[in-house]
Amino acid sequence: MPLTPEQRAEIEDARAETRQTLRATSDGMESHLYRAHEVLDHGLVRVIDYMGDDSAIVQAARVSYGRGTKAVQNDEGLIRYLMRHWHSTPFEMCEIKLHVKLPVFVARQWIRHRTANVNEYSARYSILDREFYIPAPEHLAAQSVQNNQGRGETLEGEEAARVLDWLREDAGRAYDHYEAMLSQDGQQGLARELARMNLPANIYTQWYWKTDLQNLFHFLRLRADPHAQYEIRVYAEAICRIVADWVPAAYRAFEDYRLGGASLSAKALDCVRRMGRGEEVTQETSGMSKGEWREFMAVMEG
Amino acid sequence: MPLTPEQRAEIEDARAETRQTLRATSDGMESHLYRAHEVLDHGLVRVIDYMGDDSAIVQAARVSYGRGTKAVQNDEGLIRYLMRHWHSTPFEMCEIKLHVKLPVFVARQWIRHRTANVNEYSARYSILDREFYIPAPEHLAAQSVQNNQGRGETLEGEEAARVLDWLREDAGRAYDHYEAMLSQDGQQGLARELARMNLPANIYTQWYWKTDLQNLFHFLRLRADPHAQYEIRVYAEAICRIVADWVPAAYRAFEDYRLGGASLSAKALDCVRRMGRGEEVTQETSGMSKGEWREFMAVMEG
Amino acid sequence: MPLTPEQRAEIEDARAETRQTLRATSDGMESHLYRAHEVLDHGLVRVIDYMGDDSAIVQAARVSYGRGTKAVQNDEGLIRYLMRHWHSTPFEMCEIKLHVKLPVFVARQWIRHRTANVNEYSARYSILDREFYIPAPEHLAAQSVQNNQGRGETLEGEEAARVLDWLREDAGRAYDHYEAMLSQDGQQGLARELARMNLPANIYTQWYWKTDLQNLFHFLRLRADPHAQYEIRVYAEAICRIVADWVPAAYRAFEDYRLGGASLSAKALDCVRRMGRGEEVTQETSGMSKGEWREFMAVMEG
Amino acid sequence: MPLTPEQRAEIEDARAETRQTLRATSDGMESHLYRAHEVLDHGLVRVIDYMGDDSAIVQAARVSYGRGTKAVQNDEGLIRYLMRHWHSTPFEMCEIKLHVKLPVFVARQWIRHRTANVNEYSARYSILDREFYIPAPEHLAAQSVQNNQGRGETLEGEEAARVLDWLREDAGRAYDHYEAMLSQDGQQGLARELARMNLPANIYTQWYWKTDLQNLFHFLRLRADPHAQYEIRVYAEAICRIVADWVPAAYRAFEDYRLGGASLSAKALDCVRRMGRGEEVTQETSGMSKGEWREFMAVMEG
Repeated sequence: MPLTPEQRAEIEDARAETRQTLRATSDGMESHLYRAHEVLDHGLVRVIDYMGDDSAIVQAARVSYGRGTKAVQNDEGLIRYLMRHWHSTPFEMCEIKLHVKLPVFVARQWIRHRTANVNEYSARYSILDREFYIPAPEHLAAQSVQNNQGRGETLEGEEAARVLDWLREDAGRAYDHYEAMLSQDGQQGLARELARMNLPANIYTQWYWKTDLQNLFHFLRLRADPHAQYEIRVYAEAICRIVADWVPAAYRAFEDYRLGGASLSAKALDCVRRMGRGEEVTQETSGMSKGEWREFMAVMEG
Repeated sequence: MPLTPEQRAEIEDARAETRQTLRATSDGMESHLYRAHEVLDHGLVRVIDYMGDDSAIVQAARVSYGRGTKAVQNDEGLIRYLMRHWHSTPFEMCEIKLHVKLPVFVARQWIRHRTANVNEYSARYSILDREFYIPAPEHLAAQSVQNNQGRGETLEGEEAARVLDWLREDAGRAYDHYEAMLSQDGQQGLARELARMNLPANIYTQWYWKTDLQNLFHFLRLRADPHAQYEIRVYAEAICRIVADWVPAAYRAFEDYRLGGASLSAKALDCVRRMGRGEEVTQETSGMSKGEWREFMAVMEG
Repeated sequence: MPLTPEQRAEIEDARAETRQTLRATSDGMESHLYRAHEVLDHGLVRVIDYMGDDSAIVQAARVSYGRGTKAVQNDEGLIRYLMRHWHSTPFEMCEIKLHVKLPVFVARQWIRHRTANVNEYSARYSILDREFYIPAPEHLAAQSVQNNQGRGETLEGEEAARVLDWLREDAGRAYDHYEAMLSQDGQQGLARELARMNLPANIYTQWYWKTDLQNLFHFLRLRADPHAQYEIRVYAEAICRIVADWVPAAYRAFEDYRLGGASLSAKALDCVRRMGRGEEVTQETSGMSKGEWREFMAVMEG
Repeated sequence: MPLTPEQRAEIEDARAETRQTLRATSDGMESHLYRAHEVLDHGLVRVIDYMGDDSAIVQAARVSYGRGTKAVQNDEGLIRYLMRHWHSTPFEMCEIKLHVKLPVFVARQWIRHRTANVNEYSARYSILDREFYIPAPEHLAAQSVQNNQGRGETLEGEEAARVLDWLREDAGRAYDHYEAMLSQDGQQGLARELARMNLPANIYTQWYWKTDLQNLFHFLRLRADPHAQYEIRVYAEAICRIVADWVPAAYRAFEDYRLGGASLSAKALDCVRRMGRGEEVTQETSGMSKGEWREFMAVMEG
């Protein structure tokens, strides 16, 4: 449970004050505002602010394409057209600001998406809380045998217990020493910017993260993917549910064209065409390597 | 007068519909929403949407600096501190979306600021309107004698009249031919994407332009500067007035530290220090070139 | 013919001076350096500098993936793997700097790709040359009847002649007046920053444009596409030929996975799977709109 | 000593192979290529590749400003002019690619500079080495009493010894457990992407980092500043020495206008002007807060 009673009260206060605005609003998003979506053992995602809705995408597209867009009969059709043809700029007209609490090793992956604005809690200025991510037993996975960056079976028995003990004990001891080094009780106290170096990568940090819908979709396509690491995927999935309420038409198009779609190479397209004509195609006659063929078969089988 | 009665009605309609929101609002900005600020002879700037206010900047800073910011007594002091020390990320937490109608040669300067989202009216899809920027007589300036990119005196008499006639006639004829080339009356009609090449750089285009406050301040510092070309400066000045109403504390800090401030080189600082000690400093003893010294003197004299 | 004898001499001079370096070099690229590839009637593309080669991509990937990449047997296989799985950062490790001379209306499309560094010839500081793009007769296309942003048949006979005359005459007259307004012979002379507004969008400008290989591929995918406007596509095609010599393995992967590939939606994948099982699928049973189905059929037929 | 004999041999090999190129070269930079500059106890900075030199900046500026730049007599003068007037695009025409080995807590600060290309060693794919940053005794500083993000006196005696022991022991134990969790000896072995979470922020990581000179200067201005954390400042200083050899004229301008310069607010400029006229100015008559006045006095006193 990531929230203190104090934090719950703050959220209730924020939600209690309704204001008047002439801006576009999204009812689905208003119901999310400020509320904490719990993720992992101590993490959360909260919407702090947003700009635009489905109609803001359409409006921007109509500025660009003027009379040319009149032919498209309705907003959802136009949004699907834009998504299908990679017209990305109208989706950039929506913006979201999230408050995220997440383990440092997840934050390090997340920050590789550069087209966003970030304000992270600073461990140079301030003292981090004693909160660490400890995987639930069912997510304590072995290294994959096939895939260098994948997970295999769940660890069991003594091995699992040993891992959980180490993670808990090392984090606890590191934090004890962090506090002891910082203490100014009978000693000078180490600088915060130095003491933090003792903390492990499963400690929680938090940030405000702001990005536009186009870049958010790119983030979600990569991080809500089954190959993404579980610990970041759960954040992406929580955000997917929020976006589905914010811009329902855009999210449906995203699901169809991106999340559920696939990119086929020229070789793969050639195979698909031959298969469509009833021809039998094998890896040998496909022109693909074994690895590519295996991935292609996975796409073909759904 | 850049607005048609139809457009005025649309703006009134947009302003007539008030909605409820839990988001931060800025009263100053609500009064600007959708309204057209007229710029040049047919141009305009309108706020279409915004995210955040002064307190959103403070809130983001407090996430970053945690307890460290409690020492600062009030919001305006904290905003001034952030601006003074180039802590730019909290200002990125505010976002603005503008509708701008502007001559193409101004748009070409504007677009060099890359950190923004843009949806421009497309002359591939659609037909541009017959609207051209013709300078008012008092802005019809001669080439500067000193400065390769500056303006000198105002043109007068026959020369001014000749220039205005040419600008008007060439634009009119180019547009007549644009229309005649596009016409499908008794002929095929040239493709729009080709016909547009006949149009001069003073024709008006329009776009939606969305950026964060930090990048907007950077744009305004360069384009509201007295050395910026008049035709873009008037847009920057119109936006300055809007921003002053949107985030008053941030704008005051921007005025003090950026618009009204100056960057001094190591050599200039050395001169200032010597002058502060009562020493007389000349170009010869300053270590500066003549050009630098002239610019330094201009700063010192205000 | 876009080059003056003086420019040809400059290029020969630049190519005459060989230097020693410890950096990675690409033989294919060295043969392009400084040489002008002519595009349209007065345009050009020249490589001014480059950083990296195929092995620089591999080297960066091996930093990231460490021992994990040892399993891939060779460099080309690794490059294909990276491209297939959208691992974009290794491709960002190569950089190219081009000198491009192009019509202003092409430049306005091009600049929408924001992740690049640009130094454009400034018509505020300097005087543009009398050079305009006039389409060759076979590229003088009518507006498409189906497609708002497309081209149809080639114009013929009197209509074509009339268009070419107008384009030539309007450009010539606009330039005459540009010169006459600038002239300081017996008059003050209009400021350059104002006089330029009389010039049409088919006048040539030039710039240095620098970007990384990842962003260049994105540009090429959109602009070397058959749906791109002819006048920008020829630039993209010229650059494709250069890139094929610079990073041959990366370019082959790009051709297979991007230029020759296609993105299929969830609905399209479902159809492909059903067709692969021998099922007959029609637009009615596909779940797609007519427009989508038409585009899907075009992909399936190649 | 951050390099193994194997790595030294690789560097010697890379430096042994000289190639021919027609590109611009920088002699100062060639002497740095591939060589390791040691930083902290196990860190390093190495130049892997570069594009351009001082003359590339000048060349790009002359494309932009055309005849307008002829008035400037020499290249260094033009470079100083560009730097003084914030003409940033010509500096973007130079690019550098560095290999950096650095503690994770330093990497987390560094990555906040978003306008760069990065390939980091992946602890999802690969196993990190047992290397940790342990501060030298003279850099083991207490928390500053005045400044939330600063350092005070050096720790001494038992307190210092205790801190160093904890840092060493906790890192060693965390790494022992990391290895033990990964081990597939008699057990399944935890997934790498999970095991890494036990590692503290002083473990070393490494990356390839590529950026343009304009953005590099921005990074250096912030990180070579006396207020930057010591552990990142030493990297910035090492890079400063490299850049001074790469683009000597640009670096001198950077030193004068940025590193050694200062931004003064409108209020500070007003004080400077009054002091220049011999007037006595105090905090009370300056219009500044106490904090601002203290900072202003620090600038005035050098």
